[in-house]
Amino acid sequence: MSAKIPEELVAEASAWWTTGIIDIHPGSIAMRGYAIQDLIGTISFPQMIWLMLRGDLPNAPQARLLEAALVASVDHGPHAPSIAIARMAASTGIALNNVMASAVNVLGDVHGGAGQQCMELYEAIAANPKSASDLAGAVDEALAAFVATHGKIIPGFGHRFHPVDPRCEPLFALVEEARVAGVVNGRYAEIGRAVEAGIKRRTGKPIPMNIDGITAVIFCELGFAAPLGRGLFILSRSVGILAHAWEEIDRGTRMKGPMPKSIPYTYSGHAPRKPDFK
Amino acid sequence: MSAKIPEELVAEASAWWTTGIIDIHPGSIAMRGYAIQDLIGTISFPQMIWLMLRGDLPNAPQARLLEAALVASVDHGPHAPSIAIARMAASTGIALNNVMASAVNVLGDVHGGAGQQCMELYEAIAANPKSASDLAGAVDEALAAFVATHGKIIPGFGHRFHPVDPRCEPLFALVEEARVAGVVNGRYAEIGRAVEAGIKRRTGKPIPMNIDGITAVIFCELGFAAPLGRGLFILSRSVGILAHAWEEIDRGTRMKGPMPKSIPYTYSGHAPRKPDFK
Amino acid sequence: MSAKIPEELVAEASAWWTTGIIDIHPGSIAMRGYAIQDLIGTISFPQMIWLMLRGDLPNAPQARLLEAALVASVDHGPHAPSIAIARMAASTGIALNNVMASAVNVLGDVHGGAGQQCMELYEAIAANPKSASDLAGAVDEALAAFVATHGKIIPGFGHRFHPVDPRCEPLFALVEEARVAGVVNGRYAEIGRAVEAGIKRRTGKPIPMNIDGITAVIFCELGFAAPLGRGLFILSRSVGILAHAWEEIDRGTRMKGPMPKSIPYTYSGHAPRKPDFK
Amino acid sequence: MSAKIPEELVAEASAWWTTGIIDIHPGSIAMRGYAIQDLIGTISFPQMIWLMLRGDLPNAPQARLLEAALVASVDHGPHAPSIAIARMAASTGIALNNVMASAVNVLGDVHGGAGQQCMELYEAIAANPKSASDLAGAVDEALAAFVATHGKIIPGFGHRFHPVDPRCEPLFALVEEARVAGVVNGRYAEIGRAVEAGIKRRTGKPIPMNIDGITAVIFCELGFAAPLGRGLFILSRSVGILAHAWEEIDRGTRMKGPMPKSIPYTYSGHAPRKPDFK
Repeated sequence: MSAKIPEELVAEASAWWTTGIIDIHPGSIAMRGYAIQDLIGTISFPQMIWLMLRGDLPNAPQARLLEAALVASVDHGPHAPSIAIARMAASTGIALNNVMASAVNVLGDVHGGAGQQCMELYEAIAANPKSASDLAGAVDEALAAFVATHGKIIPGFGHRFHPVDPRCEPLFALVEEARVAGVVNGRYAEIGRAVEAGIKRRTGKPIPMNIDGITAVIFCELGFAAPLGRGLFILSRSVGILAHAWEEIDRGTRMKGPMPKSIPYTYSGHAPRKPDFK
Repeated sequence: MSAKIPEELVAEASAWWTTGIIDIHPGSIAMRGYAIQDLIGTISFPQMIWLMLRGDLPNAPQARLLEAALVASVDHGPHAPSIAIARMAASTGIALNNVMASAVNVLGDVHGGAGQQCMELYEAIAANPKSASDLAGAVDEALAAFVATHGKIIPGFGHRFHPVDPRCEPLFALVEEARVAGVVNGRYAEIGRAVEAGIKRRTGKPIPMNIDGITAVIFCELGFAAPLGRGLFILSRSVGILAHAWEEIDRGTRMKGPMPKSIPYTYSGHAPRKPDFK
Repeated sequence: MSAKIPEELVAEASAWWTTGIIDIHPGSIAMRGYAIQDLIGTISFPQMIWLMLRGDLPNAPQARLLEAALVASVDHGPHAPSIAIARMAASTGIALNNVMASAVNVLGDVHGGAGQQCMELYEAIAANPKSASDLAGAVDEALAAFVATHGKIIPGFGHRFHPVDPRCEPLFALVEEARVAGVVNGRYAEIGRAVEAGIKRRTGKPIPMNIDGITAVIFCELGFAAPLGRGLFILSRSVGILAHAWEEIDRGTRMKGPMPKSIPYTYSGHAPRKPDFK
Repeated sequence: MSAKIPEELVAEASAWWTTGIIDIHPGSIAMRGYAIQDLIGTISFPQMIWLMLRGDLPNAPQARLLEAALVASVDHGPHAPSIAIARMAASTGIALNNVMASAVNVLGDVHGGAGQQCMELYEAIAANPKSASDLAGAVDEALAAFVATHGKIIPGFGHRFHPVDPRCEPLFALVEEARVAGVVNGRYAEIGRAVEAGIKRRTGKPIPMNIDGITAVIFCELGFAAPLGRGLFILSRSVGILAHAWEEIDRGTRMKGPMPKSIPYTYSGHAPRKPDFK
């Protein structure tokens, strides 16, 4: 074995695992250049989340806006598949990390991706030069394009359960405060409101913004990439998943199915028959 | 079908999914009795985590101590299986929620459970009446019992990489501040230090407290049940998992194995042979 | 950088990923020493499962006995948490691999581990020298020890739904055929029957062997290690998980919770209150 | 509460969980109409897989063709992310079901979906009326459409490691045998070969069919829906995942990262800095 090739291989192996997030040496841990001991006790958990995902520390008002979005999204009850799965998984006695994994796993496009999709819609509107002079026109174009591709349900607007989402206005008020204070420029809040108006124009009825629509406004105002919208939602909803799993574990439930055993499921399949091995 | 049985069944079905965490009605969401709009913008994310897991709001100093522990544990780099798995999973193009699930799933007893185990050790010492008058004696008994059952590695103490864990003293200083301010009573900090001393007595060498040992002190001081020690760690480490997954996704890596393809694995199995279907 | 260290590092890196299972070179794939082209079309899927897990090919009668156990365990309906989770996960639109992962994840000690635990019980009896001359006595000792440690439910015996498990006798008949043919020696079938009798002695009532008890007999007769009992069950139940997921996907269900929306869950928590930020 | 509504609710709840796969009553289990005791010992594991997914029993030659595809796909070694994840997850001490879930979870579009995508390509060609009289022309159209949408890599053809995939010709030979015997009609084998030829026409170089391309031929010949191509692959690859997990568990590895600790990762991030809380 020649010496030259191994040297390259070791360099290649080290390079294979390259990260700009964390630098570790014996007795030393630094996140994005900051020694961990300079961060503990001085920054908030949302600031740490921002630092890890973005590479730089947010200021306190930015972090507070992010924090409000994280607070607002923790849970929506046991009728949601993710929470029901957490509780049923907990009842099978698997470890808490496994319970959380089975539940987080279902927060995909349909159950956890509306915020990300809504951010992409807002970004498409913002990227359309027309939006500067004719926001309503840019919104109409974006909605038409969205509906043509994805169908008539606009992510971030309307709720199958809440006529008005009670999480929406308090978050909007915080965005407005931040805009007045110069923390954000308010462009995406304006776009969000314009989409709400545009949907009413299209459909003839009010379909108000929901939690996904307003957190999408916040994450866009704060400059997060759209895929991180889903990531931030997962961090938030993990709290509800953990709380529900723990409630079930603490109660000691064993082998909880989706309904009481007294309610049978319906069999809709083939009538009894015999295999015919001729 | 009699009318009486169905009525009972519906009641049974509703009772099957019972929770004290969240109450939802059209236009209304309340967590542990608090309307969500009263919490958004007024409580911190760590306060919401506490509320969801414990049922009541912590005061601000309690929440700040919890927050410091959450900040401290977010990441320990790509040599950890959970982070390597997140990065490799991200490279297969599965959705972010699926990436996070595969990684969170491995935060079990060995990789994510040391804090919980350390809390159980501390609690065993605190529950021993002897600890009031002879803490060192209670520690020695607990360590002897632990080693007899679990082997000589004491969770929360020593680190295979860091001679001194740089996250430990800053967190200890915050516990001491909280004790002086009357936020916590300091009993578990005392127990933690006593375990550190006890390990030195047993082994003859200093094996300093690590991140799991000090966060166990904090979670015990704040009254969390031991299993939630793992739960809180998972919430924190999910941030690192998300950051590393996102770095890999953003880089566009496809199908990253554990090492560069130029480094072959070793085959140690049976020599070539032919099946013998006699 | 000296040449010597890198050479060692490369060797260490290759050794880090060592396997006796598969040997791959360009144009060549061998499992346990057998070229893949010599196996395709010549061995059955259960034979391949055995080869991968055990290192050598079983003969055809051994494989048929394993096959019957794999056939018998594929499904037990949507009231089981694993199947309900698969169907609910499928309704969130995540990919089929993710659906299957969330469901397989819950096949732990309680929901998927009874076969493994039963194998361990049988093995403990077989390993007791007393069992040669006094099998009933060895069984009584093992049951007493098991109950003292794990509680009174003996894995592999009794069923909350079936008074007699219809999968049990057909499998027992196959074991007996295999014993007569000299394929297995029948020792674990004898132990299984003796445990069934021992439970009746202990409890005064018949608690017949169930699917886990008889597959444990088969896997022990065939020489599988107990943890692989769980592994083989997972391979089998994955078929049911896939079938139920696919039925739900094919039906186009979106966001299926555990019960129809018309049946509310029960809120048992704190009455409405206001945060008090004094 | 009126009697009428509850009755409807119970019916609705039962209907909520409807399946045509399995019918269970005390002492009775039937799959697709067949009593389980009529299937145990009489059908093969691949026949049971087919029955569960398709609703009817295949004949023996159909099942043997499916079986060969299941045998061929079990493993491709520890450089694949799924296998590396299985081994690393196993080293964290989580349960076998959890290990398998973390690994199965990554068998998505990129790592486990090529077979499904290839089936969709074949189906598009078969559905083009032109294919009856001008198969090459239909292939050219389909490839052009595919490349325009998905890029130039055609799923099922070419391999980054094997110049010729050794699993391909043995499987093709079995398809041809089945065609001669009248088990399949050979239409998709013809299409597969035509795609191979079409790729050579497009690119000017031979890019031979790989394991995904030939299993796609088999699954299409047997009439499986394309999404089940992924499902069948998962059932097969789960065997390799289990074998590698078990090898690592049996070896007793603890906390295996992606590379030996002696090989450091590369830090590419921000230089050391201090937070500036002005």
